[in-house]
Amino acid sequence: MIRKRDIKALTKIVGVENIYSDKAHRLAYSYDATRTRYEPDLVIFPRDESDISAILSYCNQNGISVTPRGAGSGFTGGSLPAEGGIVLAMEKHMNRILEIDTENMVAVVQPAVINMELQRAVEEVGLFYPPDPASEEYSTIGGNVSENAGGMRAAKYGITKDYVMALRAVRANGDIIQAGKRTIKDVAGYNIAGILTASEGTLAILSEITLKLIPKPKYKRSYMGIFPNVESAMSAVFKSLAKGANPVAMEFLDALVIEALIEKLGVNLPKDAGGILIGDVDGNVPEEIEFQLETLRGSFFENGAVEFRVAEGDEESKELWFARRNASQSITIYGNKKLNEDISVPRSRLPEALKMIYEIGDRYNFKIPCFGHAGDGNIHVNVMIDISQIESGHRAIEEIFKGVVEMGGTLSGEHGIGTSKAPFMDIAFSEEELRLFRDIKRAFDPNNILNPSKMGF
Amino acid sequence: MIRKRDIKALTKIVGVENIYSDKAHRLAYSYDATRTRYEPDLVIFPRDESDISAILSYCNQNGISVTPRGAGSGFTGGSLPAEGGIVLAMEKHMNRILEIDTENMVAVVQPAVINMELQRAVEEVGLFYPPDPASEEYSTIGGNVSENAGGMRAAKYGITKDYVMALRAVRANGDIIQAGKRTIKDVAGYNIAGILTASEGTLAILSEITLKLIPKPKYKRSYMGIFPNVESAMSAVFKSLAKGANPVAMEFLDALVIEALIEKLGVNLPKDAGGILIGDVDGNVPEEIEFQLETLRGSFFENGAVEFRVAEGDEESKELWFARRNASQSITIYGNKKLNEDISVPRSRLPEALKMIYEIGDRYNFKIPCFGHAGDGNIHVNVMIDISQIESGHRAIEEIFKGVVEMGGTLSGEHGIGTSKAPFMDIAFSEEELRLFRDIKRAFDPNNILNPSKMGF
Repeated sequence: MIRKRDIKALTKIVGVENIYSDKAHRLAYSYDATRTRYEPDLVIFPRDESDISAILSYCNQNGISVTPRGAGSGFTGGSLPAEGGIVLAMEKHMNRILEIDTENMVAVVQPAVINMELQRAVEEVGLFYPPDPASEEYSTIGGNVSENAGGMRAAKYGITKDYVMALRAVRANGDIIQAGKRTIKDVAGYNIAGILTASEGTLAILSEITLKLIPKPKYKRSYMGIFPNVESAMSAVFKSLAKGANPVAMEFLDALVIEALIEKLGVNLPKDAGGILIGDVDGNVPEEIEFQLETLRGSFFENGAVEFRVAEGDEESKELWFARRNASQSITIYGNKKLNEDISVPRSRLPEALKMIYEIGDRYNFKIPCFGHAGDGNIHVNVMIDISQIESGHRAIEEIFKGVVEMGGTLSGEHGIGTSKAPFMDIAFSEEELRLFRDIKRAFDPNNILNPSKMGF
Repeated sequence: MIRKRDIKALTKIVGVENIYSDKAHRLAYSYDATRTRYEPDLVIFPRDESDISAILSYCNQNGISVTPRGAGSGFTGGSLPAEGGIVLAMEKHMNRILEIDTENMVAVVQPAVINMELQRAVEEVGLFYPPDPASEEYSTIGGNVSENAGGMRAAKYGITKDYVMALRAVRANGDIIQAGKRTIKDVAGYNIAGILTASEGTLAILSEITLKLIPKPKYKRSYMGIFPNVESAMSAVFKSLAKGANPVAMEFLDALVIEALIEKLGVNLPKDAGGILIGDVDGNVPEEIEFQLETLRGSFFENGAVEFRVAEGDEESKELWFARRNASQSITIYGNKKLNEDISVPRSRLPEALKMIYEIGDRYNFKIPCFGHAGDGNIHVNVMIDISQIESGHRAIEEIFKGVVEMGGTLSGEHGIGTSKAPFMDIAFSEEELRLFRDIKRAFDPNNILNPSKMGF
C-alpha cells in the first residue's frame, strides 16, 4: 500500500502537477484493450529519465509496484497495474521524436511516441519504419518494443525486435543503462536490448529507443488470391514463399470471415470462397513487382486458387484491402463476445492448425472465424461466444493452445503474455524454462516491483 | 583443480574414449587464433545434449570450469580454457546438420557444423544462409552464434543473430532449455535465444541451433569504386546507402592496403588510389541489379570517385575480389606482428574514425592499414608492429578504442570480447552496465563455471 509519506517523497521528485491519486485518474489508467480493470494507487507522469530513475529507486526501497504505460492499447494486460501501486504514464512528457538521423538511417524516440507518428515523420525524409501493428494509429513505440509488436508487413520486413538497435532503460534499483549502439554490428557485452525487447516492462523501464530505418521502396502493388478452401490457401502461403516470393504482407481471411464481410458489409467477394490471401508486394524497380506477382500467381494457381486479382492504382488497392481491414468488425455477427487469441505456428503447419481450430469449434459449437498474418504463420483466432459461455470458451482456447504448442507453435505471435495468457505459460514452457525466466526476473528486479503479475511473475 | 575422482565420475558419463587428460590433447586444445595458450586439465567430447547436461551438473557441484569449443578459430580467446578445467570439444560428435526444412526455410544444426558446410547444403536446395565470417571454411555455427559472427554480406543481410530462430542449450546446473521456436513471431516468455547469442559460452552451452534461411537470389554482380582518398570513400559508403543502395557487401581497402597489394602481389590497381570499395549487388531480376549499380555509380561519383568498375562474369568478379581477399596477407609488409582489432562505428562517423586512427598511427610511428566491412560500419584495424613494440602497440589500441567509443562505436563489431578485449570493457561500459552484466551472469551461472575469465567475469 502507498502511504502518505510515499506520496510526499514521490511528489518531491516529479512536482505536484505530475502525480495524481484522485479517483478520476485512477479510473482513467485502470484499463487497456482487454477491458479488464485494475486501479492503481497513483498515476505519475515522469518528465524524463532521471525522474524514472529517482521514482524506481524510491519504489525499490519501499516495495511499491510500478507499471509503465504507453497508450494502454495492449491485448494482454501488459500495461495494467495488476497489483496496484504506481502507473508510470509516459504519454505526457516522454512523447518526442528526438532525432531522425538520415545519414545512418536511425530514429531516436522517447517511449510514448505513437507508431504512426514515427512512420509519417521518417517517410517525409524518404525512409521507412516497417513495423505496423493494427494499433499503429494510437499504440506507442515503447509499448511496441515491450510487447515486440508485429503487424502485416512482418512477412517481408520482420517485427519490432528487428528494428531495435539500442535502448536506454532504468533498472528497478534506479540504475540507468545504455544497451546497444547506433552501429549495425556490436558484440561487446550481453545483448541487453535483445532481452528487454518483449519483456513487457518486467525487467526495466524504457526511457529512450533507437530504431533502425530503411530506404522506402519506390513501387508497391496489391494482390488478392481467392481459394476454394482453407487448406489450399494455407498451402499456397508456405509454398509460394519457399519458391522465392517475398511479399510485404500476406494476410488471410477464412470462409467465416468472408461470409461475414459479404453479409454485413456487402463486400464484393465470391460467396463460395473458402479462403482469401491479400497483400502487397514492393520493390525498387517495376520488374521486381512483376517477378513477385508472377511468383505468387503461379504458386497460388498450382495450389488450387480460383482467381488472382491485382490492383491497378490506389483506388483498387484500397478496395482489395477493405476486406482485410474490416475483418475484425464484421465477425461480430457470430456472437456478442470475442475471445481473441493470436497463435503462431511454423508456416507449413498452418493447414493442420486451422483444421484443428475448426474441429474444436465444432465440438464446442462455437464459430471460430480466423484471419491474420498468414505470411509469417501468425493467425488471429476469434472464439465467438455469448457471454454466458465464457467458461467453455476458455476451455476451447486452452485446447487450441495445447494443439498449437504440440505443432511447434507459440501462445502469442505478437500480443504478449501479460495477465491474459499467464495461466497458460506452463503449457508452453518446461519447469526448467520457467525457472530460468524467474532467475532472470530476479536478477533484474529482485524485489519484484516492475509490472508484477505479468508473464506469471 | 581436477581430482582423480572427478575424472572417474566424468568418464562414467561419456565413456573412456571421449575423455582425455594426456599432454597431447591438452596442448591441442590450448590455443585459438589469438595464439595465446591456456592448457585445460581435461578434454571431453560430449556425444549429445544429455552428456553436456550430466557434465555441467557434475562440474557445477564440484566447481570445475567448463569452456565450450568449436573450431578454435576465434580472434579473442572465446574458446580458451583461461582458468583450466575442461574443454568441451564439440567437433567429434556434435557436428551434424539435423534437418533442412525447405517448407519453413529453416535449418537445424548441432553446434560443431562448419559454417560453409551449412551454406553449401542449403544452397543445394535453392536456399541461402547469408552470414559469412572470413573463417567460414572452418569456423562452426556454435562459435558463430556464441560470438555473433558477422561477415561481408552483413551490409544487406545482417549478422548471425538475425538468423537465430531457436536454440537448445544447457545451463550451468544441467537444466536443458529450449529457447525460441520455428516460428517467425513469438512473444511468449523472455528472449533467451537473444541473450545467449553473443554471450561467448558464459551463460549456457549450446546444444542445438535453429536458423532462418532465405531464398537464394537469382542474379549477382560485383562492383569496385576507386577513390582519391579515404574520406571520399567513407563518405560514399553512408551516402550511397542512404540513397537506397542496398549492396550485399561494401568492403573497404585503404591506401596502405592498396599499396601493399600492388607491391606484394602485383594487383592491378591505380598506384595513387586512396581508398577502394568492393562489393556485390544481388536481386531477383536483372533490372534490380541495374538499379543497384546505377545508384552506387551515381553516388560514388558524386562523392569524388575516379573510377567505377563492374565485373562481367565470374572471372572478372574473382579479379575484383582478389584484392579484398588478399588484403590481410598483403599487409605483412608493414611489420612482423599484427594487432588486429575490429571496431565498429555509426557509418556516418567512418571518415573521422579513420582520420583518428591514422593520426594515432602517425603519433606512435606505426603503420595502421585498415580494411573491412565499411557497408555496416565495421573496420578491421591492423596495428603493424615489431614484436619489441608490443607495449606501445597496446597503448595505441587503447587510444583507438577510447576514440571509437566517443564516436558512439563499439570495441568489437564481430570478434567478441573474450580474454583479449576484457581489459577494455570499462572504456565501453558504465559501472551500472557492468553491474547488470554481472547480475545476468550470476543468474545463469552462479558458481561461475562457464567459460570463466571471459568478458571480464
